[in-house]
Amino acid sequence: MRRFATERAKKLIVGSFLSSRSPSPSSHLLSSSAAAAASAMGSTQSPPVTLDSINPKVIKCEYAVRGEIVSHAQRLQQELQTKPGAHPFDEILYCNIGNPQSLAQQPITFFREVLALCDHPSILDKSETHALFSADAIARAWQILDLIPGRATGAYSHSQGIKGLRDAIAAGIAARDGFPANADDIFLTDGASPAVHMMMQLLIRSEKDGILCPIPQYPLYSASIALHGGSLVLAEENQREIVEFCKKEGLVLLADEVYQENIYVENKKFNSFKKIARSMGYGEQDISLVSFQSVSKGYYGECGKRGGYMEVTGFSADVREQIYKVASVNLCSNISGQILASLVMNTPKVGDESYESFIAEKNGILSSLARRAKALEDAFNSLEGVTCNKAEGAMYLFPRLHLPQKAIEAAKVVNAAPDAFYARRLLDATGIVVVPGSGFGQVPGTWHFRCTILPQEDKIPAIISRLKAFHESFMEEFHD
Amino acid sequence: MRRFATERAKKLIVGSFLSSRSPSPSSHLLSSSAAAAASAMGSTQSPPVTLDSINPKVIKCEYAVRGEIVSHAQRLQQELQTKPGAHPFDEILYCNIGNPQSLAQQPITFFREVLALCDHPSILDKSETHALFSADAIARAWQILDLIPGRATGAYSHSQGIKGLRDAIAAGIAARDGFPANADDIFLTDGASPAVHMMMQLLIRSEKDGILCPIPQYPLYSASIALHGGSLVLAEENQREIVEFCKKEGLVLLADEVYQENIYVENKKFNSFKKIARSMGYGEQDISLVSFQSVSKGYYGECGKRGGYMEVTGFSADVREQIYKVASVNLCSNISGQILASLVMNTPKVGDESYESFIAEKNGILSSLARRAKALEDAFNSLEGVTCNKAEGAMYLFPRLHLPQKAIEAAKVVNAAPDAFYARRLLDATGIVVVPGSGFGQVPGTWHFRCTILPQEDKIPAIISRLKAFHESFMEEFHD
Repeated sequence: MRRFATERAKKLIVGSFLSSRSPSPSSHLLSSSAAAAASAMGSTQSPPVTLDSINPKVIKCEYAVRGEIVSHAQRLQQELQTKPGAHPFDEILYCNIGNPQSLAQQPITFFREVLALCDHPSILDKSETHALFSADAIARAWQILDLIPGRATGAYSHSQGIKGLRDAIAAGIAARDGFPANADDIFLTDGASPAVHMMMQLLIRSEKDGILCPIPQYPLYSASIALHGGSLVLAEENQREIVEFCKKEGLVLLADEVYQENIYVENKKFNSFKKIARSMGYGEQDISLVSFQSVSKGYYGECGKRGGYMEVTGFSADVREQIYKVASVNLCSNISGQILASLVMNTPKVGDESYESFIAEKNGILSSLARRAKALEDAFNSLEGVTCNKAEGAMYLFPRLHLPQKAIEAAKVVNAAPDAFYARRLLDATGIVVVPGSGFGQVPGTWHFRCTILPQEDKIPAIISRLKAFHESFMEEFHD
Repeated sequence: MRRFATERAKKLIVGSFLSSRSPSPSSHLLSSSAAAAASAMGSTQSPPVTLDSINPKVIKCEYAVRGEIVSHAQRLQQELQTKPGAHPFDEILYCNIGNPQSLAQQPITFFREVLALCDHPSILDKSETHALFSADAIARAWQILDLIPGRATGAYSHSQGIKGLRDAIAAGIAARDGFPANADDIFLTDGASPAVHMMMQLLIRSEKDGILCPIPQYPLYSASIALHGGSLVLAEENQREIVEFCKKEGLVLLADEVYQENIYVENKKFNSFKKIARSMGYGEQDISLVSFQSVSKGYYGECGKRGGYMEVTGFSADVREQIYKVASVNLCSNISGQILASLVMNTPKVGDESYESFIAEKNGILSSLARRAKALEDAFNSLEGVTCNKAEGAMYLFPRLHLPQKAIEAAKVVNAAPDAFYARRLLDATGIVVVPGSGFGQVPGTWHFRCTILPQEDKIPAIISRLKAFHESFMEEFHD
């Protein structure tokens, strides 16, 4: 403990590092420090940390999709295990979050074959492997290993991600959009969320910076019109308007494009904002555009893999360097997630051994999602005082609740927003977890909830029955 | 584009979200938004973002291990590919960062077997699988899948990580320390760095908060005395002093314990700070303690997997809730990393099919690291004007440079710190990448560099020759 002896420790307060709240100086101080460090909390009580002594910004932050209702659901789930029969349902159905595989969606076989082979490459040249894995998965794994310096799938990569994988992603984007894409513009990340955080950390200087955001400001079908096209002309027209507006006002356009595969209507097509901007003749010099993509959504739904990327265009070289620096603070994103991000942008091709089964799995998932969305939407619209937009994309419905005044008053008594009150009652009665609309920036005075379309298809009829029975009883209880 | 039409967009500036710099409101706004959002930069130029308009804290932050010298090394590496023979070396040796597998360390077979099987569980019951994977890896994969709700390795998990894996980790900690550990105290993370960021985000309120930190404040052998024991009594005594100091002053103790397996001296033993505190009779009420662990270090060196955890003890329930909230913002860490974190804390046992090969791989790596550390340390100490502490643990040496005045002046001319000047010259002459000590908070007026002990053992003699030849020529050039 050469330099950390008790009598000297107070001298070692490293003030200069504390003028920054960006994560790096902290990590710099501590993330790999082989010794111990301490944060002075200005208190001699035990335990020293209280709500008053932590960062008030953390306390202020709310995150609806994993908020109080989810904690309550987890408690109920534990009770179901310890006291079966304690509640009027026998399972918790998590419709709060787009987490398809938690509701029994199966992973795409080809993707998992390649991941497994990259995790344990020493089986690649064994004969038994050919009995267990498809030929194109084996070939793809070899190809990916050759892209990784030293074939080291356990090494930190370049902070933007493995160059060869970024090349594959850029090629996939170019093929999708019909405009060039550059591997140097790709930053591979542990899902889309860290990418968004990176850009926010970079762009927000202070409370004086503004963010324009569509409301409701979270993934739900109705807002996804922007992405997926209200009707084929119109949507592109809306996207053009946004691009034009950003160009005119000097705004950065952050485009969350993680639902680009989730379109359930025949005549709709995904158009990336980059494609729109380029087709308007706007290039690097005209508009700063960041597109986010994730392996968690689409038909693949690989949330647990934490893979994704952002494509960053229209930033100057010196700002790009700063983005790279932020990326480098966490060293790199996980390699399996990187590999998977490259796979979703470069799927099996006609003639590949996996092609037909891949297409069957993909279409099976997407067509089932479309049927489930329709069934749930119809069910919501059949309820008294509920209206729900048509589901054409993404993974969510956002039904609006027209609640009786008595329900609104009952919510007030327990100090809850009316939609939170409704969601809590729904959970307690049915085991179905939805997110109150109040977490999504709904228009004041309106009430909604968000519900995923992800429960297994064969469970949808039972879910609808439970929803209807609950709703009728709720409306009866609070009828004016 | 219902609510984002051009003429309405300006009304949609969501001011209330911007009083927080914590990442969650941002992610809340955007991370899964199916539409587009824009950050107002107050400029109408194209491209709108300049160094003046981004967060100054990002610009201020420095991250030495992936800083300018690494960018330069990457440029040299590209030149070696495009113009072989352009430099007096034929490969870049990255000794700047503890990234063992990038320098050809092989992964532990058992760990990779389990990961591959969990990635593609449908091969688990095929007969060919038994020819390719060890029996205990197959059994372990089944066991892990049974811990995951719905066996869904592609689902978001609980934000602290999969409960059953946290149970395994807690059991591993308890077995290591001889004191109980609780799965509820474990937060699984994408490596140790995000865990450190989480705690910093929680604990730092403003520039007025202080952090005590040993200097040099980054992993290097000499500082790791604190962790690994200077001599068996003394080190524990130092750890006790730190615990006592934190208790007395009401400080949070953040213990980076990622090198707990990297000890190269027979009579030294790792003692966790929790073990020390508990053995002093201090419990939850007495000291707030966070221990960080990672799958990136140890003998496993699985940097690319991004797995790790923190064990959080001595915090009140309401503060714990805030930590959980911060964890929930990025949803969860990657599941492969979670599985791997459980494996490193629960390795094959005597009698398991993999046990002997596992132990052979583990000991092979650790004993080779010990030999490499010794050889490099001896080499540094043989150089004129260089002194280097004995390497007893971790993955680094931190030789001190006593540079001639002329070298210091030459560095000044090119506006570089003397150690950065030395490191750059070393790279240009030998292809060896080291990190200047100026990034590590060295004592002012002293100069060091950090060098990992990770190059392949059979390359060490050649590296030492190159180091010596460079150093002699450098000293001759700048001799007083």
